[in-house]
Amino acid sequence: MIDAETLSRATAAGIGRLIAGGVTDPVEVAEYFLGRATEAKEQNVFLCVTAARAKREAEASLKRYRDGRALGPLDGVPLSWKDLFDVAGSPTTAGSALLRDTAAVQQDAPVVANAAAAGMICLGKVNLTEFAYSGLGLNPHYGTPANPHDQAVARAPGGSSSGSAVSVACGANPCSIGTDTGGSVRIPAAFNGLVGYKTSERRVDKSAVFPLSDTLDTVGPLTRSVEDAVLLDMALRGAVASAVRRADLSSLRLVVPESVAFDGIEDAVAANFERCIDRLSAVGASVERRRFTLFEEVEAVTAEHGSLTAAEAYFVHRGRVDGADCAKVDRRVVARILGGKRMSSHDLISVLRQRSRLIAAFGRELDGALLAMPTVAHTAPEIGPLEADDELFHEVNLKTLRNTMLGNFLATCGLALPSGCDAKGLPTSILFSAPGGCDEKLLSDGLAIESALSEV
Amino acid sequence: MIDAETLSRATAAGIGRLIAGGVTDPVEVAEYFLGRATEAKEQNVFLCVTAARAKREAEASLKRYRDGRALGPLDGVPLSWKDLFDVAGSPTTAGSALLRDTAAVQQDAPVVANAAAAGMICLGKVNLTEFAYSGLGLNPHYGTPANPHDQAVARAPGGSSSGSAVSVACGANPCSIGTDTGGSVRIPAAFNGLVGYKTSERRVDKSAVFPLSDTLDTVGPLTRSVEDAVLLDMALRGAVASAVRRADLSSLRLVVPESVAFDGIEDAVAANFERCIDRLSAVGASVERRRFTLFEEVEAVTAEHGSLTAAEAYFVHRGRVDGADCAKVDRRVVARILGGKRMSSHDLISVLRQRSRLIAAFGRELDGALLAMPTVAHTAPEIGPLEADDELFHEVNLKTLRNTMLGNFLATCGLALPSGCDAKGLPTSILFSAPGGCDEKLLSDGLAIESALSEV
Repeated sequence: MIDAETLSRATAAGIGRLIAGGVTDPVEVAEYFLGRATEAKEQNVFLCVTAARAKREAEASLKRYRDGRALGPLDGVPLSWKDLFDVAGSPTTAGSALLRDTAAVQQDAPVVANAAAAGMICLGKVNLTEFAYSGLGLNPHYGTPANPHDQAVARAPGGSSSGSAVSVACGANPCSIGTDTGGSVRIPAAFNGLVGYKTSERRVDKSAVFPLSDTLDTVGPLTRSVEDAVLLDMALRGAVASAVRRADLSSLRLVVPESVAFDGIEDAVAANFERCIDRLSAVGASVERRRFTLFEEVEAVTAEHGSLTAAEAYFVHRGRVDGADCAKVDRRVVARILGGKRMSSHDLISVLRQRSRLIAAFGRELDGALLAMPTVAHTAPEIGPLEADDELFHEVNLKTLRNTMLGNFLATCGLALPSGCDAKGLPTSILFSAPGGCDEKLLSDGLAIESALSEV
Repeated sequence: MIDAETLSRATAAGIGRLIAGGVTDPVEVAEYFLGRATEAKEQNVFLCVTAARAKREAEASLKRYRDGRALGPLDGVPLSWKDLFDVAGSPTTAGSALLRDTAAVQQDAPVVANAAAAGMICLGKVNLTEFAYSGLGLNPHYGTPANPHDQAVARAPGGSSSGSAVSVACGANPCSIGTDTGGSVRIPAAFNGLVGYKTSERRVDKSAVFPLSDTLDTVGPLTRSVEDAVLLDMALRGAVASAVRRADLSSLRLVVPESVAFDGIEDAVAANFERCIDRLSAVGASVERRRFTLFEEVEAVTAEHGSLTAAEAYFVHRGRVDGADCAKVDRRVVARILGGKRMSSHDLISVLRQRSRLIAAFGRELDGALLAMPTVAHTAPEIGPLEADDELFHEVNLKTLRNTMLGNFLATCGLALPSGCDAKGLPTSILFSAPGGCDEKLLSDGLAIESALSEV
């Protein structure tokens, strides 16, 4: 019998190795994490626990190991899904009260089926911001999962993949799958000291995943290590091999954008960021700091024409926010969606054309380098004041999303890594980004960066 | 010295063969057609004749033939360009009075450079509907080129590639390059007894081609034969080989849509269409007639949410139609562009999503067959009444565009072929369409269909 402490802190790859080495087995692992998930459901982290499915999958995995035909490094490893993903036998609530009593879906989303085909054990569905539309993770309908890094004061878990981040941070599973439209994987990872990987657009199949913005939505894992992000990237895509390999940091070039991303930064976030950059520089990376006018251009386009996410979210949710159901939706989410209603087709076309131009410019500007900046300029804020003041909520929400949203607009892939903690023990995070489609490079560099930073 | 009659009626491929066979040479050919183009300029067909360039290109072509290194089947063959294409040394007016005195451009559009690289001789730029935004071909600024098929009454040339069609129909060049956003290649081809080939989206480079709708605009040739369309498709793309080969008609399946496309059809158009279908059936093609509900769905989407072309045209022309310049633009074109101003982002997203769905459904619905229908349900209308009554203009314009526009919405490639004439000698046309990307199949079938129909 393996000890709980080891299991609850292990990475996904680590659990796979413990199983493969005979230290534990898939059924024991599933039983342990089902217990933890059930506890976490009491804390509004899990919305539903799929115990019967997990037990069935664990038995099948155990049989595969015994028969010498285990499926790969994640066979028998548990995970959870943000409640946007269709999981056969459960409803998909999207964190909304309107969908609380919706019927169970019949079929797994393709990405859920891919994880199952890699042998992974589905523990259940986890909490999120309603309709995945904010970066703080508050949910008035299902309760807001508390950030586990502060036992004294209730702090935002980060969103919208709030349950995904908290479930990993509190040890209820080694990894969880979220979505990122404006930062919804990277922000909760940042607020919880985790690795958050935003995949490039269209890298992971998002059919049967409840949409927010068809253009910007991406699927990505929250994990404890870059290795896990690499393995999950394979599993989610149904791939059995990967071109990712630990990079040589002496050929790594980093660009640090001096405009926008550091505005209003907290001291500890800045200090931890600089320590990471110093360390990477010490092991051979070249670092160029420069004003990054593309960021200002992105902000100007959105300020003039509105938000692509809002326009697409209004398309998805029109029937809800324009009708009587509106009163049942989080008023802060409604306010954001209605921003899209006000946009003209001219605004939308302007945003899309400028976006194409800026995406191309971003690739030229980086020219093979990675962009490095703080994931969020502050640590997890207290929930109380945000709940009390909608204006403050919107201000803090936009500031929280600011850096990551630039990446979604520019169609990047991105990897948020823990950069340390502040004096209160709240995690800080550093974000590495590459042009869309450069996921293999990002993850290869990420493996090496994580090693270098762990030696600080 | 070859006789003028032969040259003026020859196909592009025919002229290439006459040159290759030593019956004429590129310089003689260019001199002849420059004379014809200069005459056609008096009739508002050409907007500018690039005589110096044509002579220089013809001399170079002649030298290549003499040196035994001719470039291919179109080396030395003249053509003209709708005045949307950048041709170095001339302004690009887009048929607008606002751009009459615009500066000459410095560089050929890539597609113009491709044709030159195939050895083709640029005669000049031809007339069009202002900003390419109507199907009839009227132009109040540069004059409307008259349809040469009626010497008694001024009839619409068809648009927007009016000058392209008339220049070929009157023998001023063997082929001309237009653009098709809602039917602007196929309609003028239909009204002038020509072959009009609408290429699939993104098949031909349209950079430095004045835009109407970035999504729907396509480049395509107006010619006297399908062979010419095939050769020009290669030349325009910079290709030196083609997978097109005459198909076997016994494996051709045709779907004739019984809804929408035949509404309000003129007797002669219907009779000529049926004669073509009978002939193709007699030589082995299978013909299935069925209600085509997709057409009704396309029309419902546009009726509910507005026109994608209008939304994108408003993006292009906002500064012109919202400001003082508006009075200098054809009021009928302004009216159409302003339709886009009224569309919300929700309308645009609705159109784009429905379009994606319907494009996929179209491919499934055809399942390897070609769609066959009249290109336009009527022959070229008289200009007089259209000029006198804007309401009539808009009604006839929309009816003229109706069938071809369905193809643009569904992202088809399409080939309009002459189907005969009515009692007045006005040409009628039959349109074959395939899903986007199936150009090789469409052209291969087209070669065989043209042969079969010529034997009627």
